[in-house]
Amino acid sequence: MTREELFQEIKRKQSFLCVGLDTDIQKLPPHLLKEKDPVFEFNKQIIDATEKYCVAYKPNIAFYEAMGPKGWESLQKTLEYIPDTCFSIADAKRGDIGNTSSLYARAFFDKSASGMSFDSVTVAPYMGEDSVKPFLEFDNKWVILLALTSNLGSKDFQQQELNGRKLYEEVLAISSTWGTADNMMYVVGATKAEALKEIRGIIPEHFLLVPGVGAQGGSLKEVAKNGMNKKCGLLVNSSRGIIYASNGSDFNIAAGKEAEKLQMQMAVSLNEYI
Amino acid sequence: MTREELFQEIKRKQSFLCVGLDTDIQKLPPHLLKEKDPVFEFNKQIIDATEKYCVAYKPNIAFYEAMGPKGWESLQKTLEYIPDTCFSIADAKRGDIGNTSSLYARAFFDKSASGMSFDSVTVAPYMGEDSVKPFLEFDNKWVILLALTSNLGSKDFQQQELNGRKLYEEVLAISSTWGTADNMMYVVGATKAEALKEIRGIIPEHFLLVPGVGAQGGSLKEVAKNGMNKKCGLLVNSSRGIIYASNGSDFNIAAGKEAEKLQMQMAVSLNEYI
Repeated sequence: MTREELFQEIKRKQSFLCVGLDTDIQKLPPHLLKEKDPVFEFNKQIIDATEKYCVAYKPNIAFYEAMGPKGWESLQKTLEYIPDTCFSIADAKRGDIGNTSSLYARAFFDKSASGMSFDSVTVAPYMGEDSVKPFLEFDNKWVILLALTSNLGSKDFQQQELNGRKLYEEVLAISSTWGTADNMMYVVGATKAEALKEIRGIIPEHFLLVPGVGAQGGSLKEVAKNGMNKKCGLLVNSSRGIIYASNGSDFNIAAGKEAEKLQMQMAVSLNEYI
Repeated sequence: MTREELFQEIKRKQSFLCVGLDTDIQKLPPHLLKEKDPVFEFNKQIIDATEKYCVAYKPNIAFYEAMGPKGWESLQKTLEYIPDTCFSIADAKRGDIGNTSSLYARAFFDKSASGMSFDSVTVAPYMGEDSVKPFLEFDNKWVILLALTSNLGSKDFQQQELNGRKLYEEVLAISSTWGTADNMMYVVGATKAEALKEIRGIIPEHFLLVPGVGAQGGSLKEVAKNGMNKKCGLLVNSSRGIIYASNGSDFNIAAGKEAEKLQMQMAVSLNEYI
C-alpha cells in the first residue's frame, strides 16, 4: 500500500485507527477455546467488528511466537483475513546485521518463503543503517522504525542526550536519510505528545505510528493537534482497549463499539486539521 | 545452565566456542534437500561433528522464521538435539514493552507454551529496563544484551557520545544493574577488540558473547587477551566459517575441522590466561 493509498483510506473511513491484535491465548473469552484455532477465530471476529472503523491492523508478533509453530499458523491466517484496504503491520521490532535482517525481511515480506506478506514491519534502530536497509529493498513495503516508545524504559537511553540532542531525535534525523516518507514510518509514543511538535520539526512528512492511546494513557486529541500533517501522517494504535473491551461472548460487539468511539473522535480531528 | 557450570564445560572441553546455526535453506548442500526436514538434518550433522569442540550453540532465529511455521518446527527439533552440556542461545534480538517482552520470554523459555526452552536469548536494549526485566524473571535463564555489535551500523548510534561516554558503554553501565553476572551476558563485536579492555573496566565479571570471528574478520587472539576474565567470561561465536566450510557431502567433516581449529587456538589462550 502506498502513502497516497493509505491517505485515501483515511479520508474514506474518516479514521486513522490501527487495531493492535495482541491476542493472548490466556486472555480469550472462554467460549472460543473450543474452536480449532481460537486465536484466529478471535482475530476474525475482531476484524469483522472493527474493519469499518480502522485503516490498519497490527498483530503483535510476540503473542503468536509464544505459541510455537501453531501460533505462526494463526498469524498467517489472520494476515490472510485482513482486508486489502487495510494496512498491515507486523509488530516484530526486529533488527540484526545485514544478512540476518534480509532473512527477517523474508519472514515478513516474502510470501513464497514464509507464507506471509505484510505491508510493513517494526524495526529497532540500535544496530544502525545496515540493519535497516535490507527491509527497504522490498518494493511497496515499509519499515516502521522505533524512535520514542511509550514505556517507562524510554527514559533509559532514548531520552538521553547524544551529540547535543536526544537519542531518539538523533535516530529520527539520521535514519530519515536511509529511506523516504514513502517507505519509512516511525513509532512515537503518545504519552509524550508534547514531543510530537519537535519531532515534526525533524520529520514533517513521515507517517507516525502512535501506540499508547488507551491502556497506556495517551491523549488522542493532543496527538492529532501536534502530530498531524497534510496527509494525516498518523496511525494511532489501540490494542487492549479494543480487543479486550469485554471478555464475554459479546467481545466482538464491545470491540466494535470501542473502535467506533475512537473513529468518531478521529473524524473530528481530521475535519479540524485537514 | 549456571555460570559455574558453563565455566566447568569450558575447562573440560578447553574451548569457549559457540557455533552459530545460521542455517539458510537456500545454502544447504544439495544432497540434503531430499530429506524430510533438510534444515534439521543439516543442524543435526553439524552438531554431531562439532559438539566435542564447542560449549554453546546459537541458532539465529531469523533463518528459521523466514521459513514460516515449518521453520519453527526445525528450530524446536534442533534445540531438542543440542546436548544438555552445551549452552543454548536463541539469537533473536527481541525487546518490547513489558507485557510484550513477557510473551517473547514465553516464546524462548517456556516449553509448555512454545515447545522450546533455550538457556538464553539475545535482547536489544533500545527500549530500556522494563523491556529487559521480563526475561530476567525466569530462573536459570539468561539475557544476552546487545552492547557493541560487529557491523558497520554500530557507528550510527552505539559508538556516538551520550552523557560523555559512548552509547554502548552507557548501555553496559546502566543495564548491568538490572541483573547480575549470573543472568546477564553482553554481545560485544570482536572487530572492536581494542574496546574490550575498556568494556572489562565497566563489567569485569560478565560473560561476553563475541560474534564476528571468522566471516566478519575479528582476531581470536586479541579477543582472548583483552576480554578474558578468571571464569573465562567469553563465548566466541563462529557461524558461516564453520557451517558453510564446505557445500559438498563432506560439509559436516569440514565443519568439524574448522571447529577443531578454533578450539585448539582457544586451548592455548585458556592455558595462557586461566
